[in-house]
Amino acid sequence: MYVLIVYDVEEKRVAKVNKFLKTYLNWVQNSVFEGELTEAQLNRIILWFKGHLDLRCDSVLIYTASSEKWLSKKIIGVEKNSTDNIL
Amino acid sequence: MYVLIVYDVEEKRVAKVNKFLKTYLNWVQNSVFEGELTEAQLNRIILWFKGHLDLRCDSVLIYTASSEKWLSKKIIGVEKNSTDNIL
Repeated sequence: MYVLIVYDVEEKRVAKVNKFLKTYLNWVQNSVFEGELTEAQLNRIILWFKGHLDLRCDSVLIYTASSEKWLSKKIIGVEKNSTDNIL
Repeated sequence: MYVLIVYDVEEKRVAKVNKFLKTYLNWVQNSVFEGELTEAQLNRIILWFKGHLDLRCDSVLIYTASSEKWLSKKIIGVEKNSTDNIL
């Protein structure tokens, strides 16, 4: 499945979240990662979030499309990090 | 079509972008808007971005799914602004 993760977490946790997500997904913009994941990988990410974030103030949105073909992407302005697999 | 807009723009333009996008979409997290749009509305938004952003340094990602049913959403931690139509 194709996954898009957008997060809004306290400053002191941003580096840790970035470092972790980079092992699974492509960084495409500040606080935005995307890429192909298996169900198991996504569950691992969700578990990690629950164990490392302050769920009272941090916020993570996870959008999933069963396949990349259901999600098109347009970039306006600077392309911070290209992911050829979706364009 | 269901649209998700994520932006990373210079601080001095954030308020203006927020104010504009709120007329079309739901604010769901810092720099993240989502909602149902027509093709014409999306085109108007794209034109507005091209006329109001500095395309050399600002970045906007627009994800579209032909229908909401192709995009599921999971929230971890704080739900900054709920959009019942997708959950």
